[in-house]
Amino acid sequence: MTALIGIDWGTTSFRAWRMGAGGEVLETVEDGPGILAAAALPGGFRQAIDDSIGPWLGAAPIIASGMITSRNGWVETPYLPLPLDARALAASLTLHQGIHFVTGAVSGPDGPAPDVMRGEETEIIGHLAGGGTDGLFVLPGTHSKWAQAGGGQLTAFRTVMTGEVFAALRDHTILGRLIRPGAGSADAFRRGVEAGRQDGALLGRIFSARTLALMNRLAPGDIADYLSGLLIGDEVAQGARAAAGPVTIIGRGDLALRYRTAFAVLGIDARIAPPGMARRGLWEIARMGKLL
Amino acid sequence: MTALIGIDWGTTSFRAWRMGAGGEVLETVEDGPGILAAAALPGGFRQAIDDSIGPWLGAAPIIASGMITSRNGWVETPYLPLPLDARALAASLTLHQGIHFVTGAVSGPDGPAPDVMRGEETEIIGHLAGGGTDGLFVLPGTHSKWAQAGGGQLTAFRTVMTGEVFAALRDHTILGRLIRPGAGSADAFRRGVEAGRQDGALLGRIFSARTLALMNRLAPGDIADYLSGLLIGDEVAQGARAAAGPVTIIGRGDLALRYRTAFAVLGIDARIAPPGMARRGLWEIARMGKLL
Repeated sequence: MTALIGIDWGTTSFRAWRMGAGGEVLETVEDGPGILAAAALPGGFRQAIDDSIGPWLGAAPIIASGMITSRNGWVETPYLPLPLDARALAASLTLHQGIHFVTGAVSGPDGPAPDVMRGEETEIIGHLAGGGTDGLFVLPGTHSKWAQAGGGQLTAFRTVMTGEVFAALRDHTILGRLIRPGAGSADAFRRGVEAGRQDGALLGRIFSARTLALMNRLAPGDIADYLSGLLIGDEVAQGARAAAGPVTIIGRGDLALRYRTAFAVLGIDARIAPPGMARRGLWEIARMGKLL
Repeated sequence: MTALIGIDWGTTSFRAWRMGAGGEVLETVEDGPGILAAAALPGGFRQAIDDSIGPWLGAAPIIASGMITSRNGWVETPYLPLPLDARALAASLTLHQGIHFVTGAVSGPDGPAPDVMRGEETEIIGHLAGGGTDGLFVLPGTHSKWAQAGGGQLTAFRTVMTGEVFAALRDHTILGRLIRPGAGSADAFRRGVEAGRQDGALLGRIFSARTLALMNRLAPGDIADYLSGLLIGDEVAQGARAAAGPVTIIGRGDLALRYRTAFAVLGIDARIAPPGMARRGLWEIARMGKLL
């Protein structure tokens, strides 16, 4: 018996779950088309849904979160201001083409550095709904999100472009020229974290990825890990300054482990959240929105 | 009567001067091939010299500084440690193919962030020799150099990759997608400087170049100037923290003016050095080296 269909629909990813009466997962689709790929299909987003989860349709309400509600998505919805909780997200669901869309959040829309998220708010709500503690949440990625939650609410966040800047530096600056493929060096990564945490002078500090290599003090196969550590070390040192409460990393695989290591170098014990936060958040918002 | 031929030979630039007995300029070549272009000539660096300043040859000693003494140059020479003055550079001239090559400088070769320069040391020496004061020197560029001089010596420096990072962010990250050509906005540049000077959290702060544009608070034609201001503002705010003495910008055109503006936003009155510092430095080192 299907109670809810949930979709986490990002720019380059599409994950969906068919859930039972208690929120348990009955079936999963992990490889649907992200927004860019879906928009390019002849039948667009509708086709993406039919192709990916056609057999599920009609069995239960559908709820979706992520960049799918952005300007380049299926339906653009206005951001909600902070502080934000599951109830506010549920009250703002947008029904479009039979799907209930969760909107995103905006921080400081009138301030000097406005910021936005779509999708991560649902993951944080999922964490809080699952009995997770308040505190600092880090969602590593191309654009990492750093969010603060308290009293069951998302209270602040900002976007840090670490992943995309790393790729641009590696592929399109002099720092990449000496890089050779390596086996992956945890030592080089830690060394980069130590360098990156020193001060905020990142535009200068990164040059050491070249000079250390030129002086044969950094192996060509280790440069990428060192540079990764340097950027993540800067990000984590800057982010930890304003942090309050326990630190939770919402992410998977090697990247989540890198962030945990960077926090450890700074003497902070960060916890990696169990998987399923997006699905759990969708369930909670659907419950608040009386879709169940 | 030619007394000295001086060459400032960089990766992508070649400037040469024929100087008279008092160091005055008799003739100038501004458009010779930089190292990359020269190395690609059939006759290599030798041909570059012959093509560019052939008629001058034989009339006087030749002295050259810049990246031409790097691994990719004509002759690789060892870096000199700090502190460094004209006398030490003169004592280390390398005679190769009839040219006296000025070597570069290394900072903290055994420390966590070693740094190197080739060419800028000669410009700073030129400034000091011309009666310029000690203090902080900023040489803006793809890789900016920040140098401290005292007692006629170059005592510290570091490289800041502002120019190259700006180009990588503009051309190879999401920040560039909304950029449209603009007339050049001094206001947007200043606004960026104000944002960039705030704290060291640059990897997060740069995202505002996108969000402000998405919220129609930054015109597409102004984004590039804003981002330029943001990076230079970060660089100048970080660099000014450790500065002692008056600030001198060694550079030309719009870029030098941008740096002066950024210093002004921080309440610091920076002076732009008169042109000719490289040539004057070559003259001084040649004099110390008894080439005159």
